[in-house]
Amino acid sequence: MRIAVLGGDGYCGWATAIYLSNRGQSVAILDNFIRRQWDHEVGAETLTPIRPLSERLRSWRQLTGKNIDSFVGDVMDYDFLSSTIKEFEPEAIVHFAEQRAAPYSMIDRKHAVFTQVNNVVGTLNVLFAMREFAPDCHLVKLGTMGEYGTPNIDIEEGYITIEHNGRKDVLPFPKQPGSFYHLSKVHDSHNIMFTCKIWGLRATDLNQGVVYGTVTDEVSMDEALINRFDYDEVFGTVLNRFCVQAAIGMPLTVYGKGGQTRGFLDIRDTVRCIEIACLNPAAKGEFRVFNQFTEQFSVMDLARMVQTAGKKLGMNVEIKHIPDPRVEAEEHYYNAKHSKLIELGLVPHLLSDSLLDSLMNIAVRYRDRVDSSAMMPKVNWRQARNDRSSSAQATEPAHHAVRGNGSRSKTVKPEVEYSKR
Amino acid sequence: MRIAVLGGDGYCGWATAIYLSNRGQSVAILDNFIRRQWDHEVGAETLTPIRPLSERLRSWRQLTGKNIDSFVGDVMDYDFLSSTIKEFEPEAIVHFAEQRAAPYSMIDRKHAVFTQVNNVVGTLNVLFAMREFAPDCHLVKLGTMGEYGTPNIDIEEGYITIEHNGRKDVLPFPKQPGSFYHLSKVHDSHNIMFTCKIWGLRATDLNQGVVYGTVTDEVSMDEALINRFDYDEVFGTVLNRFCVQAAIGMPLTVYGKGGQTRGFLDIRDTVRCIEIACLNPAAKGEFRVFNQFTEQFSVMDLARMVQTAGKKLGMNVEIKHIPDPRVEAEEHYYNAKHSKLIELGLVPHLLSDSLLDSLMNIAVRYRDRVDSSAMMPKVNWRQARNDRSSSAQATEPAHHAVRGNGSRSKTVKPEVEYSKR
Repeated sequence: MRIAVLGGDGYCGWATAIYLSNRGQSVAILDNFIRRQWDHEVGAETLTPIRPLSERLRSWRQLTGKNIDSFVGDVMDYDFLSSTIKEFEPEAIVHFAEQRAAPYSMIDRKHAVFTQVNNVVGTLNVLFAMREFAPDCHLVKLGTMGEYGTPNIDIEEGYITIEHNGRKDVLPFPKQPGSFYHLSKVHDSHNIMFTCKIWGLRATDLNQGVVYGTVTDEVSMDEALINRFDYDEVFGTVLNRFCVQAAIGMPLTVYGKGGQTRGFLDIRDTVRCIEIACLNPAAKGEFRVFNQFTEQFSVMDLARMVQTAGKKLGMNVEIKHIPDPRVEAEEHYYNAKHSKLIELGLVPHLLSDSLLDSLMNIAVRYRDRVDSSAMMPKVNWRQARNDRSSSAQATEPAHHAVRGNGSRSKTVKPEVEYSKR
Repeated sequence: MRIAVLGGDGYCGWATAIYLSNRGQSVAILDNFIRRQWDHEVGAETLTPIRPLSERLRSWRQLTGKNIDSFVGDVMDYDFLSSTIKEFEPEAIVHFAEQRAAPYSMIDRKHAVFTQVNNVVGTLNVLFAMREFAPDCHLVKLGTMGEYGTPNIDIEEGYITIEHNGRKDVLPFPKQPGSFYHLSKVHDSHNIMFTCKIWGLRATDLNQGVVYGTVTDEVSMDEALINRFDYDEVFGTVLNRFCVQAAIGMPLTVYGKGGQTRGFLDIRDTVRCIEIACLNPAAKGEFRVFNQFTEQFSVMDLARMVQTAGKKLGMNVEIKHIPDPRVEAEEHYYNAKHSKLIELGLVPHLLSDSLLDSLMNIAVRYRDRVDSSAMMPKVNWRQARNDRSSSAQATEPAHHAVRGNGSRSKTVKPEVEYSKR
């Protein structure tokens, strides 16, 4: 199957591209490397030393004999996108090519506008290119569980049957997204649903939970294939941050009470879910929604699990509550359905202690690359302009004081080893 | 009360601005006249000969002694918008400044992208300007009943109580918009709801039905104040088109079966609803939704009413079904609530035969200005590119043949007279 991976140089995109290639699919990556530019902008760096895409692809070819096509450009550029679609003739388009960080979208007006325009127009371009040049192609679009917010009822997969005043209909599940980024995904979902209806396009919206992990079977073939591990306050996710904080002996920074509950999944499940979606395409005209996560945890659940895993590695991990920079319920009901991908064959990797070890081991292995100043939140949802310059005060700047305690002095042997060719 | 009317040179905007001014409010109009430019682009013209804004405002001052401030610029331009907000210090912002035609948004990719970017970014700019420079100001935003689509259950005003698996929550009513334009309004609604939550802004989303009528008490003071009457296939609405078709003896063009049912209201009720919203502002942090229409009709209901009204004026009005250029249910359940504005004091003007007479009289009065080629649909929802050039074929180009039959030869005295100063 010919599969175009838009945003294939990013975190989920890269892991997906080489996974699908390894499974025998014909893969093309479209990327403009803007994700790498954002690192420079926010002054952050992936913990893991990722290589340029050209080098990644060369290594992949040398290691496996498999070729992945590379098209360098922006999905906002319709000429680029449509000519690439015409040339590659994809049967599936996996669309990761969006700005995907909530805090980035909340920095100020320009970042909010950029995020919504970039994501919404990029997706409109994909839809028009499909309509014009690949009408049978299947769109596999990355949405987010954050589209739903935290309603006081069970979250269904995309649609809900509503009985009201004696009548009944199956309607899109109401959305209550929590950032300008999450809003952009809601806008996308509505746009995609509409084009499936009017043009008979086929699309799967994968409402993904928070992804953790760096190592997949493919990534572990060689260090040249290593994937991103973001832990900074803008692009980092909570579990990565906790593991890095534990590794350098810094208290885990829980936003508010820590009762915020979300769906999570291992990146090895992300790539498998994408494969499942591609191999089981939506019908013509169908807009299908899968909730793509395997387990749900509260932030405090994660903090305690990292604490326990750290203990096994001989670390003394503290948990600290700091004011929540986001506007969100710090305690709430949460029960989200996620059975459709399981029914299609997903066998989840669960976040057990051993997985935590593996995550923790990446953090320990690269801890000399940690910038401890990158983790405290500087983007406050309540403000219309957030100054992230180096002179600006973070919400809680006291974290430098704790550096050096805990495990930092202890030698922990990394258990993740890359096989060498 | 200081009220800024964004898009105050447009159809609803102009009627609203002079109504509010007449009622003693201090009004400013912000407009960049792009609506007039779109007429040039699509090759259409309002039936009524509207005057430039500067002349309208001069006449208004001469007639009433009341001044309306005019700020010329684009809400997409944040410097313009924010400096105007700082200077005028509005207590309410009435936001009409969007691209508001479904067919315009469906012409092709560029028009879809333009509509969504223009509307979404314009509204984001308004929200950020309010947060930064007018945090207590009340946003009165024009949405559309089209955000809801045509669900098989009763449509509530913005929110619906859902009981599900033994739990209950009040959630945003699910949206199923039917064009890239309607989608832009759904995107706006989600964005506004979010900023009310995180910044404590106050907003009223007026999900307006299809507005008809040209004459308000203010407009009828002098012909220099005359308002738009759009009847072309892009910006015209169905009732206007039917009246013009009747006036020139052309069969009424019903799209498909004509069972499409929507909410409608008289423009005199539009301006009153805006006033009611302004005088009864939302609470801080509240995102309130009113369904702003007074009666619901199917397209066939309207065709038959125009036929009956035409008969009274001595016209022989035919009804013709043409293929529906839109993708929409041609027969469906429709029952939308609209009691909140009534509870706040709205006394509706109903679409009785006399109102039809008044609408019809405008059509008859200006029928020498009618371009009969402007009414057949050239924008087909099923296509990604619609060629609207003059050489392009309309869906049903046979309408020229019918011109001249029916009432054209009959002298009908217009009953609408403008009082002269």
